[in-house]
Order: sequence, then structure tokens, then C-alpha cells
Amino acid sequence: GYTNPSRAKTAAGMLRYAGNDVVAVLDSGEAGKTAQALLNAGGDTPVVTSVKDAGEANTLMIGVAPTVGKLPSPMRRHVLEAIQHGWTIESGLHDFLCDDEEFAAAARDSGAVLKDYRKNTERDVAMRQGLRAECLRLHTVGHDCSVGKMAAAIELARGLESGGVGTKFVATGQTGMMIEGDGLPIDAVVGDFISGAAEKLVLENQHHEAVVVEGQGSITHPCYAGVTLG
Amino acid sequence: GYTNPSRAKTAAGMLRYAGNDVVAVLDSGEAGKTAQALLNAGGDTPVVTSVKDAGEANTLMIGVAPTVGKLPSPMRRHVLEAIQHGWTIESGLHDFLCDDEEFAAAARDSGAVLKDYRKNTERDVAMRQGLRAECLRLHTVGHDCSVGKMAAAIELARGLESGGVGTKFVATGQTGMMIEGDGLPIDAVVGDFISGAAEKLVLENQHHEAVVVEGQGSITHPCYAGVTLG
Repeated sequence: GYTNPSRAKTAAGMLRYAGNDVVAVLDSGEAGKTAQALLNAGGDTPVVTSVKDAGEANTLMIGVAPTVGKLPSPMRRHVLEAIQHGWTIESGLHDFLCDDEEFAAAARDSGAVLKDYRKNTERDVAMRQGLRAECLRLHTVGHDCSVGKMAAAIELARGLESGGVGTKFVATGQTGMMIEGDGLPIDAVVGDFISGAAEKLVLENQHHEAVVVEGQGSITHPCYAGVTLG
Repeated sequence: GYTNPSRAKTAAGMLRYAGNDVVAVLDSGEAGKTAQALLNAGGDTPVVTSVKDAGEANTLMIGVAPTVGKLPSPMRRHVLEAIQHGWTIESGLHDFLCDDEEFAAAARDSGAVLKDYRKNTERDVAMRQGLRAECLRLHTVGHDCSVGKMAAAIELARGLESGGVGTKFVATGQTGMMIEGDGLPIDAVVGDFISGAAEKLVLENQHHEAVVVEGQGSITHPCYAGVTLG
């Protein structure tokens, strides 16, 4: 029942930018529909109601990013079932799957891999040193959450690349990381080290002609201004 | 060798605002001096070179707050000795004492308590609800680290209190917390929850006539702007 564009932001982003790798969308309340109908992305990708209907899938991605970062309780049994099938579970929640005793025990039994994208041990402070002047650094900003900072960054990076400019999309959130395969979860870094983590991402990628850094939150948002400025 | 006002900011703050509880200052390179001579605070409080010279002390506070939050290696043996004596160790470092295997094992043997002020599990998001209009909220800010935001906040709170205004100093850093006995380590909270933690501190204390909230970092500081704004 969470499969709509505002609640399932991660799922929609995956379908839009990595849709070829998606076998099915799992939502126990929306059987028989297509991803396109629910999420405006993903074309004919089918919506299934349980893990066992997902055919050749071997990975379950948790497609929501709720404000407090907890797993919605209706999803719990699907996650557990996928773990018991030995799938890889990819999660961007603040509550880590591998810290959940039931999930961790099931994963030990089945050999399933629990991948928590927000788990990090960042401990670097920004030094403002070594930036390469020849690398064009672009950063997307917005005046609220969920307004398309990540999508704009990806489109910009792909546009530059297709125009012949060697460009890297620098992911700073869990969905961007799932799509790009690297990056850091800036909003899950301990306060003192937010700027250091952001700087490290730029330094690691500045061998490209251009980097497009995904923006986080909004400087005018009362919840997330700290994350944005870091 | 760390006992000077710029490196031992925590020690100086403790001596200035909770000096009656301090038996001695520990620095293996500064025997025989007074706290006043090294830190401009603490009067005749003696400087000793080892835990066993600290008389009736039963608590070791780590008096430094280095940028990366690690324990300076010369201090390691003193901390270990104090643990072996069964003392309470109070630390504001980002690297937690209780995660250090050698310290944790020694504490299990001696019964010593390891208190990591920066350890926290804050998971609340700011909601901007329920603020009491009659409570005067004051916040100290500054254009750099170590310019006296905490000291200004404490002086302001004590001044208001002595002028008859019921006032609470709201500590947001480890030194303020050690002095006041409560508060939250804002710079050690995960990014998404910085604003929520700050708001919670205000809500918990707004039954006072006034609250003075200690500022953190500086909005113009490249390392800590994220912490400041949150």
C-alpha cells in the first residue's frame, strides 16, 4: 500500500534510472497493476503481492524513505521472507536491518546479505584543500524535500555526458547510491563529519571533467537545514 | 603537555564553572604548577603527573576536544590507570572509550564506569510544534570555533538567574554537559536528527522563564556549518 510516487520515492527513482534491472514491484495491496500505473515509471514492470511471485529476482530493495527512517510494519514479513529465500536486501533506512535480531538471525541461517546504505563510519573533517580547479563542480539545491534535486542531478550528469563532457553523478542519498552504485549517505553521517564526507566525495571524483553533486534537504527546511549546509 | 587554554578547552571550562569539584589537573609534563598558571582558571588547584598523585579523586575527565575526536596517545596510559583504580572516566570524544577493547576489558575487571558524553541514539525530527511563547529563548552564536559561545551562554544564564529570571543553561556540547549535568551532544547526532535533538532540548526546558541555548560551530565555518544550523 506504499506504492505511490510520494511515499515510494526510492522505488520510483530506481525504476526511472535503473529500471532494466527491476523484475517486479512488491506491494501486497496492488496486485496485477503495472509499475507505470502506480509510480509513473517502470512501464510494464508487474506489481506482485509476495516475494515468491517475483520470478527470477534475487534482491529486495526497500523502496520507501520515511521521515524517521523506520521500516513500515506491513513490509516486515516480506523482508523476512526474502531473507529466508537467501536474497540480498538493500535498505536505505536509518534503522539498520543488520541490527534487527530477527532479520540478522534469519540472514545467518540463509546466507542472505543485508545491505544498509545509511550505515557509515565517516570521521573526516573538511579541510578545503586539494580541489582541482579544472573540474567543474555542480550542486543541485531546492527549497523543500522531494522536489527533484536527485533527478535533476542525474539528468544533468547524463546530459553533460551525452554532450561529450566526462561527468560523474555524485550520490549523497540512499536512492542515488542504489542507482549509481557508490556515494555516501550524507544525512546519516554524524554532524561534525558531514562537511568532511561531502568534501571527500568531491575529491574522489574530481578526475572527471565535471561532477554533479546531489543536493540534500533544503537550507530553509526546519528539519534538514543542517544536512543541507554540510 | 596538552594543558593550555586552546587545546584543553574542556578542562578550562570545567575549572571555570565547576572548579569546586576538581581535585587536581593531570598532565605528565607540567608537575608542580597550578591550574591557574596553565589554564587561566582553577586558582591553586595542583597539576599532578599521574593518577596515583591525585589524592581523593574518583573521576577522570578527559579535558581535550580535538577536531577529529580521538584520544591523544600520551593520555592513553593515564586513562588505563584510572580505569584500573575503578574511577569513573568522563569523555567527550567522538571515539568512544567503551568501544575500546582494552579500556572496556579493564573496566569490566575493576568496575570502573566509562561515560561517553557524545554517545547518543537521537532519532527525532524537528516538528516546530508546542513552543511556549512565554519562555524567552536565547541562543549564542559566533563566527568561529572556540570563541566563547558556551562561556557566554553560561554567564548569560547565571546573570539572568541572579537578576531574578528563572533561567536554564541548555548544553549542546560535551563540556557544557559535563558542567550542567544534562544536555545533548549536538555535533555527534546523525545529520537528519540534529534539528530534532536541538528542538527537544528546548521543549524539555521551556518551563523556565528563559533558556540560553549554547551555540555550536559557526555558520561560516567550512567544517561545522551543518552542525551550527541544525
